This record gives sequence, C-alpha cells and structure tokens, in this order.
Amino acid sequence: MRQRLFTPGPTQIPERVTVAMSQPFPYHRGPEFKKLFAEIAANLQYVFQTQSEVLLLTASGTGGMEACVANLLLFGQQALVIVAGKFGERWQELCQAYGLETIVMNVPWGEAPNLDELKKLLQMHTEVAAVFCTHSETSTGVVSDVQAIAELVNAYTDALVVVDGITSVGVLPFYIDKWNIDACVTGSQKGVMVPPGMAYVALSERALKRFETQQRDELLKRRNLPHYYLDFAKAREAAKESMTAWTPAITLLMGLRESLQMMREAGLENLWDHYAQLAKAVRAGIKALGLELFAQAPSNALTSVKVPPEIDGRKLTEALRAKYGVTIAGGQGPLKGKIFRVTHMGYYDHLDMVALIAALELALRDLGWKFEMGAGVAAMQKVYA
Amino acid sequence: MRQRLFTPGPTQIPERVTVAMSQPFPYHRGPEFKKLFAEIAANLQYVFQTQSEVLLLTASGTGGMEACVANLLLFGQQALVIVAGKFGERWQELCQAYGLETIVMNVPWGEAPNLDELKKLLQMHTEVAAVFCTHSETSTGVVSDVQAIAELVNAYTDALVVVDGITSVGVLPFYIDKWNIDACVTGSQKGVMVPPGMAYVALSERALKRFETQQRDELLKRRNLPHYYLDFAKAREAAKESMTAWTPAITLLMGLRESLQMMREAGLENLWDHYAQLAKAVRAGIKALGLELFAQAPSNALTSVKVPPEIDGRKLTEALRAKYGVTIAGGQGPLKGKIFRVTHMGYYDHLDMVALIAALELALRDLGWKFEMGAGVAAMQKVYA
Repeated sequence: MRQRLFTPGPTQIPERVTVAMSQPFPYHRGPEFKKLFAEIAANLQYVFQTQSEVLLLTASGTGGMEACVANLLLFGQQALVIVAGKFGERWQELCQAYGLETIVMNVPWGEAPNLDELKKLLQMHTEVAAVFCTHSETSTGVVSDVQAIAELVNAYTDALVVVDGITSVGVLPFYIDKWNIDACVTGSQKGVMVPPGMAYVALSERALKRFETQQRDELLKRRNLPHYYLDFAKAREAAKESMTAWTPAITLLMGLRESLQMMREAGLENLWDHYAQLAKAVRAGIKALGLELFAQAPSNALTSVKVPPEIDGRKLTEALRAKYGVTIAGGQGPLKGKIFRVTHMGYYDHLDMVALIAALELALRDLGWKFEMGAGVAAMQKVYA
Repeated sequence: MRQRLFTPGPTQIPERVTVAMSQPFPYHRGPEFKKLFAEIAANLQYVFQTQSEVLLLTASGTGGMEACVANLLLFGQQALVIVAGKFGERWQELCQAYGLETIVMNVPWGEAPNLDELKKLLQMHTEVAAVFCTHSETSTGVVSDVQAIAELVNAYTDALVVVDGITSVGVLPFYIDKWNIDACVTGSQKGVMVPPGMAYVALSERALKRFETQQRDELLKRRNLPHYYLDFAKAREAAKESMTAWTPAITLLMGLRESLQMMREAGLENLWDHYAQLAKAVRAGIKALGLELFAQAPSNALTSVKVPPEIDGRKLTEALRAKYGVTIAGGQGPLKGKIFRVTHMGYYDHLDMVALIAALELALRDLGWKFEMGAGVAAMQKVYA
C-alpha cells in the first residue's frame, strides 16, 4: 500500500531533495563543502527574512531551542516563558533545567496568548533577560502574534525575544528583522522540507552583541551556562570559514541546498499564500464532515481537529494508517485522544490535501460517523475553485 | 571527475545504505518506526559487544561525548582525561566546560598513553569519578590499549571508564562488556558506514546504576550538571517504547538499519581482520614510496603519514583532490601540514586502497618526490597475495 505522510513534521520531502541527498557527499573540511555551506547560509537568511546570522546545528529543533537558552542566558537571570502547549512547556523545561528563574505565563491549550496579560507580566518583571514564545504551537495548531509579542517585550523590557519558529519559518508570514525578533529556531523537517536531523537558529545583531559581551566580560563570563556542543561561539567561528564546528549531517545539508533553492524559486510570500490556501480548503472539508476545529487562532502550518466523543481517536488514526496508508498525528499530553492533527506545511498541494480528506472520510465511515460521503472533498473543491 | 573519499570520517557509504535512505520514511511515533528502532537497538548491541543499553542521539560524535560528561558526572567531581591528540583534548574541553576538576594526562601526539604514568596518576587521584580516554585517536592515528586502561582504572578507583570509540567501534577489536567499559561513544559516519549526523552511546549496567542513583538521590540530584536535549533519562524512557526522546534523523536511521545488517552478515571479527589487512597493505605501500608512518602504535582505522620536509602538505592534499578526485585529510592542530591521514574504516576493499596509493604516487610525482613509480601499489599487491 502506498504510504502518505501527513504529520505536522516530519513532512513529505520533494523528490529533488531525495535525489540531492543520494549523491556522493563531500568532505566537510574541503572546498566543495564550503560552497555548499555558503549557498545554504545565504538562502537561510532569505527564508528567515534576516540580514543577520543563521547558525546550523546537527540536532533536532529541541537542540536548537536548548542552544538559545544555554548561550544567551546567564546564571541567575530571569526568563519569561509563554506556555500555550507542549512546545511552550519545552521552553519552560529548558529554562528550568538550566536553573533560570522562570516566570511562566500559562495559556489554555487551544488559545492564543492574551496580550494584555503578557503586558501586565512584563510590567511586573522588567528585569527579565529573555522572553520565550512559540510562533506556531504544533501541539494545539494555534498561531501566536509574535510581532505584537515582540513589540510589547521591547516596549517594557530589554529582554531578548526568542521564538520557536519550528513550524512557522517558511510557512507563515514571519519577518525576523522587521519584527525585532532576537532568536528564532526551526528544524529541518518542517517548512524547509528536509528529513529531520538539523536545527537552524537565526540571531539578531542585538542578540549577537549581547552574546559577545557575555563571552568577553570577565564578570559575566563566570555566569555563562555550561555547554559545549551547541556553542554559538564555535558555530560562528566555523561559519566565518563556511564550515561547521563539528562534523555536520552532510546529506541533510545537500537536501537543504535543494529545498532552499526550491523555496527561492517559489518565493516566500507565495509559499505563505499556498499554505493558507491548503489550510482553508482542508478546514472547509473538515467542517463539511461535521467535525469541529480545535485551535481558536489556527496556524496555517497544520489543522487540529476535535475528535467527537462518539469516536475513539486512536482507532481513527490507526484506521487511516492501516487501511489507507495515511499517517496523521494524534494529540499530545492532555490532548491525547481528544484531537488529531494534519500538516499543510511541507511538500504538498491541493490534490494531496484532497487525498487526505478522502481517506479521512473513508476511515470515519468505517468507525460509524454519520455524514454525507464526499461532502468533505466537495467542499474543498469549491474553496479551490 | 569521479570523486573518491578517503578521509577518516566521513567514510564511503555502501550503495545499499544510500538506497535505504532514499525510501519514504516513517513517522517517528508510529509502529513502523518502532520496528526500525528495535532492530537497530539489537544490532548496535552486537556491534558494541554489549548486553546493556545503547542510546541513539541526533548529534555528531561530539554531542555523544558531551552527553557522557553532562549525564554521568556531578558538580564538584574530579575527572581524569588522557589527552594524546585533538580528540583527547575534546574530552578535556568538555569536562572543563562543565566546571569539573579536570586532571590531564598529556601524551605526546603520535604516542600511545604510558600505562605506568596512568597508574601513578590513578594512585594519586583515587577519588576520580570518571576516566576519559580515546580508543583510536583520529588526529594522530594511534590506538590506545583501552582494555589495559580499564583494568588499571578499575584496580585503583571506582571511576567510570568512558571511551571515545568514534573511530574504533566496528573497526578495531573492542569488547565493551568483557573489558568493563562503562560508556562508549561512536558516530554514524565511521565504522558503521552511514552519513554523519548521529551518535550512539553504550552504557554499562554499572554506569546506568550510578546514573539512576544520581537521578533519584535528593542530595546528588542538586549536583546534576545542567542539560536537556542530550539527557540519558529521556532517551532511555523513550527507548523502552522503541522510540527516541526527540524527532530523530530518520533517514540516517534507515541507512543505519541497512549498514548494521551488512555488518552482521560480514561478522564483526571478520571486519576487524579486514581493516587490519587494508591497513597492512596501505602501510607497505606508503613505506615503498619512501614515506614514514607517524603513529607509534597505529590504529587500523586509519594511517597517518609524515609529510617529508621537501613537500608542502597542503599542496599534496590539494593535488590529490583537484587532479585525481581523491580526498584525504591533513593534520589537525600542531600537526597541520606535517602529516596526512587516510581511512581504512568504512566501505572500502583492497582495490579501493590500491586506487588510493596509485593516486598518491601520481600526486607525489607531480610534486617532485623521488621514488620508483608503481612501487607503492606493487608492495600492496605482495601483501595482499
């Protein structure tokens, strides 16, 4: 049976990327690699919409998140973390693992952060060194207004604005420089359409300046958080020579070169529109089947859908996989069994999404859900037309 | 021009591995991935010669090394590090990055650690919590007697024996359990013949017991070194379900499944013999060209060769690459320009090594080195016959 991957990461990979990754790979200290690196670095700046630096780390997105905490913060500093789902919790756990004083703004899962509440917190904690947030919360399917968050943070504090952009970079409208974002992480297996295994971290001039001071100043140096593999200083030093500090995931970089070229060819704004279109059609299809969306402010990277009480969420996922070869994601943490999630980001077009909703119709029928067969795909077609 | 990679990592990849990595990949939380994971875990035990656990980390070998330091040691503890090259220095830098009291046994580059000296150090520092060493020091091409090192450490201390096995696992005779090694790291791009991007860490029952105590005991817990992404506890918890804690480098794991199967088919002892044969032939070829070996106790993972003073080491590497498509590695740190290094580990046979020495002959002639053309390859053939 043909397998189709519709999880909100890893996402489906373009054939061009697979072919690129199958070529013989260069030595990571040789001239061919340096060309590869330089081309990637320039195109990542485009995808992140920044003139500043984007670092490459061989790690999952979580490793990129840890790098931000371990490099940018100091012992004894305060961090404010906006937690609206599993990936917000990850920022919290990371800050706490490093012993930072962590102020948590809890947002009900499924909702976007309340900006008034954030404002109050910022007014109370003006000494906070960094604010951590999640642009597209993959566990709930909710998008945050990171532009407004950054404005508030910059209005009330000197804190760095650190964004988990793992399912937003290349997917949702996002301007790192224009919005004054100081650090932003993404992973290889999401909007940039490469298999998992790498994280990319964009850093603002301001973040780099602060980091350099912390590296240089004798008193601050003593307060640096311990780390080595994920060190920004080593990554930057190597990047000056178009290299990585450690042996990188070379085949993934070869795929990345290709996918970034494709993203340049398509144009970032067109990609954002494309994902918005896919999301719109899928959501029309979902509603036509009598299902309800979960996210109150839906991210166009994915759609999260409530599992009706009459249906066993695990059975639905299992039926899709076993009978129709379609893999989607269930809920995480407190949402286990309560929602399911399907991607839009990645290498997908309208017809892929029609196939997804068609499979969902078949699986729902198998589980006894009542709806008009074909209503989902028909609704999608109307949106597309 | 056809490119041939002869660096001591990354190494040449079997075609079967490339094909495996080009297949559609499964979702890392689904049943197909769990099968993949379970098969890999079992075969890694074979390759490491251990009945205990082998953890998978998405990181280069350095990330695996850091994981050992950050998980197994505690604030305020002493570490003894044997430094006989660049990778020994890496253990030292890692221990120091985490603020551990680090006792360094410096070994001249090119030599193997002196066991009498180690014995004296161990007698002086019986409280040491871990001893870090390098089985095959890739920067010098020297092999250490880790069996004897482990015996000494266990005779005089309760320290854990932590081994960088990055260019030894799957390449040199190595029995983790039998030799009482507590932790051993390797990378994907060396003896296991997969592109770079993953680290594998074998942990002894004793190391796991100590780790568990440190996780449980309230007083010890406060002394844990900060870390998150590379956490052994999270990796072990996920491994119980045949999963990884974070999204792993799935395509590399698909390649790994294939390469581990190939290693099982070949048989580990046969692979060790095979690499010894390749090393023997290459060294005979090198000597027949009038060149001198650098390592006093050569590791069969690679051969390091002194660049004669009459020749510019960088020009030699460059001539091989540009004119003959052959990539080798130069010296690192203080050995830059003074030695060159060629791999034996990886997917290579006698004929590959003949091609390597043939290219070396041509490049040496270009640079004016005097020798009998063909003497190198002829000497290799005699060894093989």
